[in-house]
Amino acid sequence: LLIGSEGTLGIITELTVRLFPVPESIRAAVATFPTIQSACETVIEAIQSGLSLARIELLDAVQIGAINAYSKLTLAEAPTLFIELHGSCEGTAAELSRLAELAEGHGGTGLSHASGEPERRQLWKARHDAFLAVRAAWPGREALVTDVCVPISKLARCVAETEADIRRHGLTAPIVGHVGDGNFHAIVLFNPANPAELEAVAQFAARLADRAIGLDGTCTGEHGIGQGKRSALVNEAGAGLEVMRQIKKALDPAGILNPGKML
Amino acid sequence: LLIGSEGTLGIITELTVRLFPVPESIRAAVATFPTIQSACETVIEAIQSGLSLARIELLDAVQIGAINAYSKLTLAEAPTLFIELHGSCEGTAAELSRLAELAEGHGGTGLSHASGEPERRQLWKARHDAFLAVRAAWPGREALVTDVCVPISKLARCVAETEADIRRHGLTAPIVGHVGDGNFHAIVLFNPANPAELEAVAQFAARLADRAIGLDGTCTGEHGIGQGKRSALVNEAGAGLEVMRQIKKALDPAGILNPGKML
Repeated sequence: LLIGSEGTLGIITELTVRLFPVPESIRAAVATFPTIQSACETVIEAIQSGLSLARIELLDAVQIGAINAYSKLTLAEAPTLFIELHGSCEGTAAELSRLAELAEGHGGTGLSHASGEPERRQLWKARHDAFLAVRAAWPGREALVTDVCVPISKLARCVAETEADIRRHGLTAPIVGHVGDGNFHAIVLFNPANPAELEAVAQFAARLADRAIGLDGTCTGEHGIGQGKRSALVNEAGAGLEVMRQIKKALDPAGILNPGKML
Repeated sequence: LLIGSEGTLGIITELTVRLFPVPESIRAAVATFPTIQSACETVIEAIQSGLSLARIELLDAVQIGAINAYSKLTLAEAPTLFIELHGSCEGTAAELSRLAELAEGHGGTGLSHASGEPERRQLWKARHDAFLAVRAAWPGREALVTDVCVPISKLARCVAETEADIRRHGLTAPIVGHVGDGNFHAIVLFNPANPAELEAVAQFAARLADRAIGLDGTCTGEHGIGQGKRSALVNEAGAGLEVMRQIKKALDPAGILNPGKML
């Protein structure tokens, strides 16, 4: 109950964490695809095949361009998956070749060779620096990072419609995402001194949230509701919002926990 | 919030289920151990090694005796693990030999050969019939099935202390459990016409719940609080019970949802 409540029901002062062992084998790989859709279809098939994907990150061509410049890499500027498999040595080897077959079925290339440990670290460093890379590529512009999450079966459609939306409105918004969970982010660039751009970014974020909700998803995968997505929460939770309000009132009768937020 | 509320906060009328694919390879195996403790230690090490155990069931010698008679099997009457691994063909083969090494380190035997599909089905049929086997082995006696769950690191200790308790009080109570989750069951036999036996069974169940709570576990893993474990819930939840009461009152002000239960 508390995990998703964003501080509105109490403050977590102590946590017990579950530890997972370091796997015997960790293999990373990069695959390049002709379209965002073909990359997403590969992710869907990999998950439906039961492959033990520890990480599977989607980056669009614009994001890869920024990463190449910032992290001094030479990746093909096309829709790309960064992948990591965990398991036994035999297991990850077998799963990587299965994954290569699936990717090839969608025109994907590059999965035939797994990265060594230095390349693996370089890859994830570059992924972690994706936001910095975008900021560096468009100096002087601000960035709004927004995220949504949809059922994995709707992921390809949601990402493709979002890309079309970005093009249609002439926005610059690299897409990155933890697509194994159906979760992806758009980093929307804008000039904060230009009210028309500010409005366009807000409208885009609202359309993205509505699109995800319309596809049985949620208006935020990991960033949270906060204050910015309160109206999206109304659309998403509907009558459930009243139940949330009752619980809020029961646990915080004085309204002192994260006051004025969300509910 | 609703999943664990046992009907006290509402009735679930619609569910969306997540489907998991049938794995490429499913391997089952049986291992026999000198003691319950050595079987539990093997489970702990297997989980800490990151093996992808799909099922791992512990059965004590008394339970195996009942199962042999009921399901016409010839298993060694000793503490036993029924195991199932899911994954790729290469992955499950590698993990099964790893598991055999771990078991041998604790005096376990029998894991060198995986069962074929007919043996696998026979094994799980026998496990599902464990309760029927116990009823058949002690005709005319009633059985109370109670369960607890503890952190995996405390499992061996909890089961060993429970076995000692059973012996000390002269009870008949086969133990079976989904030990991969730290969850196990005792099937306590008694003559319903004998008040002293009824009292002894209730006392045993209360001691088992207290033992699990004392080991940072819970008084029930899957059977639920219901009415029988209300006092154990008080011990376990402490001040948290008041929070539960507030939520109950907020969502069920008229007290019509599973009235009179738990809170």
